[in-house]
Amino acid sequence: MTQDKINRQWTVARHPETSLDHSHFAYREQPIDPVGDGQILLRSRYLNVAPVMRMYMMKNGGGFSTESPLEIGDVIHGRGVAEVIESKHPDFKEGDFVHGQLGWQSYKVSSVTQGEKIIAMQRRGVPAYYGLSALGMTGYSAYCGFVTRGAPKAGDAVLVSGAAGGVGSLVVQIAKALGCGPVVGIAGSAEKCRMISELGADEMINYREEDVAERIGQLLPDGIDVYFDNVGGAILEAALDNLARDARVVLCGSISEYQQEKRTGPRNYTSLRASEADMRGFFVYNHAADFERAEVDMAEWIKAEKLRALVDISDGFDTMPDALIGLYTGENLGKRLVRVVPGEDVIF
Amino acid sequence: MTQDKINRQWTVARHPETSLDHSHFAYREQPIDPVGDGQILLRSRYLNVAPVMRMYMMKNGGGFSTESPLEIGDVIHGRGVAEVIESKHPDFKEGDFVHGQLGWQSYKVSSVTQGEKIIAMQRRGVPAYYGLSALGMTGYSAYCGFVTRGAPKAGDAVLVSGAAGGVGSLVVQIAKALGCGPVVGIAGSAEKCRMISELGADEMINYREEDVAERIGQLLPDGIDVYFDNVGGAILEAALDNLARDARVVLCGSISEYQQEKRTGPRNYTSLRASEADMRGFFVYNHAADFERAEVDMAEWIKAEKLRALVDISDGFDTMPDALIGLYTGENLGKRLVRVVPGEDVIF
Repeated sequence: MTQDKINRQWTVARHPETSLDHSHFAYREQPIDPVGDGQILLRSRYLNVAPVMRMYMMKNGGGFSTESPLEIGDVIHGRGVAEVIESKHPDFKEGDFVHGQLGWQSYKVSSVTQGEKIIAMQRRGVPAYYGLSALGMTGYSAYCGFVTRGAPKAGDAVLVSGAAGGVGSLVVQIAKALGCGPVVGIAGSAEKCRMISELGADEMINYREEDVAERIGQLLPDGIDVYFDNVGGAILEAALDNLARDARVVLCGSISEYQQEKRTGPRNYTSLRASEADMRGFFVYNHAADFERAEVDMAEWIKAEKLRALVDISDGFDTMPDALIGLYTGENLGKRLVRVVPGEDVIF
Repeated sequence: MTQDKINRQWTVARHPETSLDHSHFAYREQPIDPVGDGQILLRSRYLNVAPVMRMYMMKNGGGFSTESPLEIGDVIHGRGVAEVIESKHPDFKEGDFVHGQLGWQSYKVSSVTQGEKIIAMQRRGVPAYYGLSALGMTGYSAYCGFVTRGAPKAGDAVLVSGAAGGVGSLVVQIAKALGCGPVVGIAGSAEKCRMISELGADEMINYREEDVAERIGQLLPDGIDVYFDNVGGAILEAALDNLARDARVVLCGSISEYQQEKRTGPRNYTSLRASEADMRGFFVYNHAADFERAEVDMAEWIKAEKLRALVDISDGFDTMPDALIGLYTGENLGKRLVRVVPGEDVIF
């Protein structure tokens, strides 16, 4: 009965070297495999696009080890929110929703392997795309990265770069919910800054128009206690010049460096010394034990209207390559994701 | 009675820009000021030379804020071990030994100000130069940097760069005393490596002759738990490529970068992410509350013959500029210091 459906897929046509364009993507249609014992058939509802996907598409996975390297013709890796439409697995039934590793395709027959990290969603009466933002990996990243690795205290001065992005916009709101302040967000346009302000940030810096180091010094004269870094590069350096004693710098992402051919490091990293600051690496999959706590706290903040998911929805499966390419030019407001069926949102 | 003595001094003749040479130093002789109420007269017995002194001598103190910037003609900053030869201060009497900020001079009349950080030495029956090594700031740096900031556990794989230097050679021994292992030391000659081995290091890497990253990978296949960094630069990058989960990188010094005109940062700093490692700044003066504990533990290890001070003594006050200049070319074995009166050691 499912075999009459068509599985639409985006695959790797060519490995990217530096930047991405349409020539790296190929579209194809495939029949759907029958569902075997212990398997479930998933129908993709929302698919994620994220900067790391360019690395997945590179030769040898860009040296990034969490997913197996993609060969030419392979379906591109990516997580998504899906509905279970057929189940021969004891833990799932028709109508359940999950988020997990689906790949860039409209259907997936899954054996619920460890590697797919399929997580059942709890019914919360919100749009199901929350499973790709506040109530999924993006939310776990913001929560575990900021709370566990950043160790914020009430009253801490917090700086967040990429503050209009998926993770960053949640970190801004978590920081406020925990009583930190001032909370300063950095973004790349007046529109994004306005948006961050609406989410509760106390101050904003537009890095395309302002001297970031100077503005941090003005806004946080006693220094930064927690800097949540989504971008690396010059903004990381500006933050390192403005640290308070015992500051924590959480390294979550470095999108400004992904497309550079010649990697550089923060030239002023030695400024960690006088302030005895820590630069702390963060990798969300190391924190699986805390995902449930993250989701419970996040869901509570959502109910209390202290937190909302900022999503930038690209409409339709066809738009996936454009949705990803546009990430590197900073055009998205909040977490970018793709609604697989145009115009059709699901409440779960 | 003291006024008939002559105070010999080294002063700044010219601010250095990149490397140091003799033209930056001037020698002069001065009478000694009378000792006023609340003051002590100190006779320098051992004077420290350390890489940071080049920064002290730079215009505006090289941007380094712990000492007031030196003007042309000022006595160069530096700590030393001195004997109290006259006291009008209630806490000190003739015959006491102290270590503190003396400057590059043979005598000092001190008001025992906060800024001089004068610390009375305990009588331990060892050469008084221990006050500039294991039982002084160098020891506090090794102990507080490694123990407090590095948080080592028994069995941790430890890597120490600059392992034949003053701080590094103590860190190697502290690591062994605490049951860490393997402990790997990095140094720049076969002679230095032999010396580190005698101090108890399990393995050595000669960075001038070996591929450091490759050797780390061979010697510590499960990765580094604590890297104590005295050098920065390429060796820091090699260490970052070989970190274990939750590794701690203690940034104590970066001598390989001090003479560079164009500072660079570790290009692979993002490797902190997957391993969730911390890069932790360290600045010894932030740890004054732990100095006594450090000294007590170090003295015990010395008594138990688990630890000895590796010193490289330059003989005579005249040799101070050469002793400092030579530091940057890596010619010293252990903590370099100057014995003010040639050939004359003091036991205290």
